Amino acid sequence: MKVVIIGGVAGGATAAARLRRLDETAEIVILERTGYVSYANCGLPYYVGGVIRAQDALTLQTPESFRARFNIDVRVGHQALAIHQESHTITVLDLASGTQYVEGYDKLILSPGARAVKPDLPGVDDCRVFTLRTVEDTLRIRSYIESHRPRSAVVVGGGFIGLEGAENLLHAGVATTLLQRSGQVLPPLDWDMAQEVHSYLRGQGLDLRLNAGVQGFQEMDGQFYTLVKDSAPIPSDLVLLAIGVTPESDLAREAGLTLGAKGAIVVNEHMVTSDPDIYAVGDAVELTHFVSGSKALIALAGPANRQGRIAADHICGRESRYAGAQGSSIIKLFHMTAASTGLNEKAAQAAGIPYDKTVTYSASHATYYPGAENMTIKTLFDPSSGRVLGAQIVGFGGVDKRIDVLATAIRARMTAAELTELDLAYAPPYSSAKDPVNMAGYVIENLRNGAISQFHWSDVESIPKDGSVTLLDVRTPQEVAVQGLIRPDAVNIPVDELRDRMGELDPSKPVYVNCYSGLRSYLACRMLGQRGFQCSHLSGGWRFWSYVTT
Amino acid sequence: MKVVIIGGVAGGATAAARLRRLDETAEIVILERTGYVSYANCGLPYYVGGVIRAQDALTLQTPESFRARFNIDVRVGHQALAIHQESHTITVLDLASGTQYVEGYDKLILSPGARAVKPDLPGVDDCRVFTLRTVEDTLRIRSYIESHRPRSAVVVGGGFIGLEGAENLLHAGVATTLLQRSGQVLPPLDWDMAQEVHSYLRGQGLDLRLNAGVQGFQEMDGQFYTLVKDSAPIPSDLVLLAIGVTPESDLAREAGLTLGAKGAIVVNEHMVTSDPDIYAVGDAVELTHFVSGSKALIALAGPANRQGRIAADHICGRESRYAGAQGSSIIKLFHMTAASTGLNEKAAQAAGIPYDKTVTYSASHATYYPGAENMTIKTLFDPSSGRVLGAQIVGFGGVDKRIDVLATAIRARMTAAELTELDLAYAPPYSSAKDPVNMAGYVIENLRNGAISQFHWSDVESIPKDGSVTLLDVRTPQEVAVQGLIRPDAVNIPVDELRDRMGELDPSKPVYVNCYSGLRSYLACRMLGQRGFQCSHLSGGWRFWSYVTT
Ligand SMILES: Cc1cc2nc3c(=O)[nH]c(=O)nc-3n(C[C@H](O)[C@H](O)[C@H](O)COP(=O)(O)OP(=O)(O)OC[C@H]3O[C@@H](n4cnc5c(N)ncnc54)[C@H](O)[C@@H]3O)c2cc1C
Ligand SMILES: Cc1cc2nc3c(=O)[nH]c(=O)nc-3n(C[C@H](O)[C@H](O)[C@H](O)COP(=O)(O)OP(=O)(O)OC[C@H]3O[C@@H](n4cnc5c(N)ncnc54)[C@H](O)[C@@H]3O)c2cc1C
Ligand SMILES: CC(C)(COP(=O)(O)OP(=O)(O)OC[C@H]1O[C@@H](n2cnc3c(N)ncnc32)[C@H](O)[C@@H]1OP(=O)(O)O)[C@@H](O)C(=O)NCCC(=O)NCCS
Ligand SMILES: CC(C)(COP(=O)(O)OP(=O)(O)OC[C@H]1O[C@@H](n2cnc3c(N)ncnc32)[C@H](O)[C@@H]1OP(=O)(O)O)[C@@H](O)C(=O)NCCC(=O)NCCS
Repeated sequence: MKVVIIGGVAGGATAAARLRRLDETAEIVILERTGYVSYANCGLPYYVGGVIRAQDALTLQTPESFRARFNIDVRVGHQALAIHQESHTITVLDLASGTQYVEGYDKLILSPGARAVKPDLPGVDDCRVFTLRTVEDTLRIRSYIESHRPRSAVVVGGGFIGLEGAENLLHAGVATTLLQRSGQVLPPLDWDMAQEVHSYLRGQGLDLRLNAGVQGFQEMDGQFYTLVKDSAPIPSDLVLLAIGVTPESDLAREAGLTLGAKGAIVVNEHMVTSDPDIYAVGDAVELTHFVSGSKALIALAGPANRQGRIAADHICGRESRYAGAQGSSIIKLFHMTAASTGLNEKAAQAAGIPYDKTVTYSASHATYYPGAENMTIKTLFDPSSGRVLGAQIVGFGGVDKRIDVLATAIRARMTAAELTELDLAYAPPYSSAKDPVNMAGYVIENLRNGAISQFHWSDVESIPKDGSVTLLDVRTPQEVAVQGLIRPDAVNIPVDELRDRMGELDPSKPVYVNCYSGLRSYLACRMLGQRGFQCSHLSGGWRFWSYVTT
Repeated sequence: MKVVIIGGVAGGATAAARLRRLDETAEIVILERTGYVSYANCGLPYYVGGVIRAQDALTLQTPESFRARFNIDVRVGHQALAIHQESHTITVLDLASGTQYVEGYDKLILSPGARAVKPDLPGVDDCRVFTLRTVEDTLRIRSYIESHRPRSAVVVGGGFIGLEGAENLLHAGVATTLLQRSGQVLPPLDWDMAQEVHSYLRGQGLDLRLNAGVQGFQEMDGQFYTLVKDSAPIPSDLVLLAIGVTPESDLAREAGLTLGAKGAIVVNEHMVTSDPDIYAVGDAVELTHFVSGSKALIALAGPANRQGRIAADHICGRESRYAGAQGSSIIKLFHMTAASTGLNEKAAQAAGIPYDKTVTYSASHATYYPGAENMTIKTLFDPSSGRVLGAQIVGFGGVDKRIDVLATAIRARMTAAELTELDLAYAPPYSSAKDPVNMAGYVIENLRNGAISQFHWSDVESIPKDGSVTLLDVRTPQEVAVQGLIRPDAVNIPVDELRDRMGELDPSKPVYVNCYSGLRSYLACRMLGQRGFQCSHLSGGWRFWSYVTT
């Protein structure tokens, strides 16, 4: 059997290695357009910033090591030009020599990835405008930094690559402006969760400009400018364009394989395309979202690796299936961590899936042990079953742990009630006796069984201002003095005085309670509710409200 | 309704707070023998070592704050002496005044915890022999350290408290010897996993002595000694006795409540004892182990908190149930982390549960990103279904995350195949595209479907030495030169040369392969197996073997 693989990185290299383990006798050829295989795409931004210093750290294998270990014929600098399904052949261009040749296959695996979107804007092909996808791109940026010592950069796009690029440019000592067309960075987060990221990034010295539509690039008076809609041009010595990726599916399209959303290659659960002898994996394929069941494009390394292995399994007659991706993702932003898994509000709405949500604020570990840091957790759940649908976390230490626990819970289709039962490992340096994930479960269960009602930051302005309701703030007067009220008409009665001072409140008026994080307002609502008040509390408290609205 | 709670810490204080949230009108009384409520037992060792400096950080609530926030009558320094079920009363001793009184209840919650075992040894009551359970114990040790400036300490017992105590004594500048009766510290780990902890602790300056049976304590010539079986007495200025805890169930026993293993209180899934008006929670009760279904004693704060809340729920007519504990636990040892969840080998054997196991060695995050550290993961699974039964991890960064992911997977009764599908959040600072948990799943699945056979460190000596088998080491000659072979009769052929040099091996002899971690030996076995060799590889590789056996 002869298997040819187009693309020798996450999906392709993994498929090749697994194929060899399953079949010592197969002939395996990897065609890779760039000069490198098995490279660490995800590490590239850190080489730009000098966090990763050794260039060979970026490549996990070389063609030689692949040959020695896996007996695989890796051809870097070889680009597949066309697939001929009938004849089971590929036309290949040897980029070094410029010669073309034809390669036959019994099975073909496409793992061509995605390409950086390069919009058709004036000046976009200027040599100071970079994209970041391959090792070559990375070396180009790094050598530009070393030779030109740019003092300023513009990053266009606030997704993972744009943000990691911006952080690393700042690391490299380059003053950086990030332009994002929409009102938020990090699309896996909802806007409210992203707001905390925005203010943090600004605090780290990033000149972050939201709602900034780039219109082109232009040199004027010897200075290079990025042109921004409704705003002054922004001078910089370097531009990193990171406005997203698009499936690298031209070959598949031209070969007549069935394509789906955004031109991604359609595959079944075994990663087989519309041609039974052609498999496709990774960023180039359309997936089923594990939670929504909708079709989705998820360009992440974990799914690409897993899919590559499944394709290899299936070629070797094994019954592996890909059960869908849930988009678990994470990013380090200086010391902050932002992560998400499953559905966010935008995705749930788009898929027409009913959801409710809570916002909780928890310490990474026992607060009495040094170094505890708080994280904001937004959890989406199915109001009728309590099934957890998605989670977003922004914080510092321990965010990665909680997102992975929630990702696992979502995979197991757990409900919020089951989150409360999770028996997680506790010692003061690592967690609290009630882990933040348990706590999210409690809060959701209290909502679902009517122990508490809630309102959200987005409701604050629309709560009647005509005196027909009471806004009650149960923080201490000291906190209120420093932090301010969510609305000037709120009255302040600290929770610890509420039982004694309940007479100050009009029992005929609905009460909207807030505190700092949501815990004391919950306690207050329990007191008020049992005395006959109609009562709800502000999810996420003053803190989340203030992050989102300022 | 009047609820009396005996014991005002993890289980008791949580039950009280939840009760109040559910019922504003209940009369709630907490009787607490010590001078403190809601204290952070788990933080106590760190106060001894000065890691936690503020004494008030140790108490999450005071009687006053409990009164203000929860309207609860907290009586510290009040000890329950006897429970009278018929009359629904308790005899209470006010320790300050020495007076006794009788308190009535409608419902009673027992959360008396466990007491430090104090064996009947000569000299055990000497004022230099301490135990660590309460705030008072902690202040006593700390003030002894400050006033006497001990230069040396003996810690007896290598469980969590003994080890945390020893680490903190070292932090406080006290040369410390730890004596452990059995051959390993940390009973939640199997001996082989504990071996890595042993060598690390010794490297941190702990004088760790295993198989050291303490026979008593004695002052000789003005020096205090710990007497050890078959060994010289050990001088020290201070002894911390931490040989385990025993359920504090005297009250329950005397009241005639049903007791189970080791005198722990028997409860049903609602935490109700044999008396329907008496609940019991926390360290004092007998639990059902979630994985084995056996009865178990699990003295941990998470379960105590959860059970307290469930007892409160049930008293208020809610259908909460405790579904069993799985013993997830974790400890920081200097920079090391050791953690476990579910069944270890000892527990599986005791419960008669069939299991198999793998040992994998994974990096905490992408190795090309700075700061990655390796961890050893031992995973137990049901050989027929592949269900994950338990896991133990010893390492540094990222151990807490993987144990919690595995704890969640075990809770969801996931199989190893499902571990491979977990969609965990990956970016280079946090993980690898195949997370260590995914990798454990792959390795187990390969075993279960026959892609690989394995042997263990414990088999190495019993593999025939008569030339009837081949021991093959596939590391590089450089590694072998530095690290040595697992047995002198092993032959060395690096994995990358194996295809070419397979002729050097006798195909009629079974081959036992090892490498450093188990990855390359797996690759070698795949090559050999497909060429007709009968082949198995050393789980955990040379590295685990060498840790365990040296
Ligand atoms: C800068 C950066 C940072 C990232 N960070 C993360 C992260 O932190 N976490 C995460 O989960 N994911 C991250 N990703 C995404 C992750 O790298 C991809 O999801 C993953 O690599 C996709 O694997 P793939 O095999 O589909 O494509 P790729 O890994 O991109 O490999 C495709 C290869 O195919 C080659 N190719 C394409 N067409 C042809 C052709 N016609 N002939 C020959 N060769 C061809 C390409 O040159 C390319 O090398 C990052 C990506 C980038 C670029
Ligand atoms: C030093 C130390 C470190 C620990 N570290 C961890 C850790 O890192 N992680 C973890 O999960 N667990 C840890 N634990 C265990 C954890 O603290 C316990 O599992 C948990 O506190 C048990 O809760 P409980 O309510 O059953 O008992 P406790 O919290 O011990 O509370 C029982 C209380 O009842 C009181 N009492 C007993 N009898 C009477 C009576 N007759 N009248 C009045 N009062 C009475 C006692 O004085 C005590 O204050 C640690 C324990 C200790 C001592
Ligand atoms: C380098 C690369 C070729 C490795 O592929 P691979 O051999 O499948 O992966 P690994 O080296 O992690 O090894 C995993 C294999 O070893 C096995 N293994 C790992 N540890 C083991 C152990 N201790 N004992 C036995 N087997 C073990 C696993 O089961 C798995 O084998 P399987 O797939 O047959 O089940 C591929 O991952 C790659 O190119 N990566 C770089 C590109 C990339 O992923 N980029 C995006 C992220 S930056
Ligand atoms: C301090 C102590 C009394 C607190 O008990 P508690 O009030 O039940 O616990 P918390 O303060 O964590 O609050 C949890 C409650 O707030 C709710 N909550 C937390 N965050 C919330 C938020 N953002 N919005 C709404 N509700 C929230 C939870 O749902 C839970 O309420 P519920 O039990 O009614 O569902 C008790 O935990 C204790 O004594 N601890 C110290 C002793 C101990 O545990 N020692 C061993 C470990 S060191």
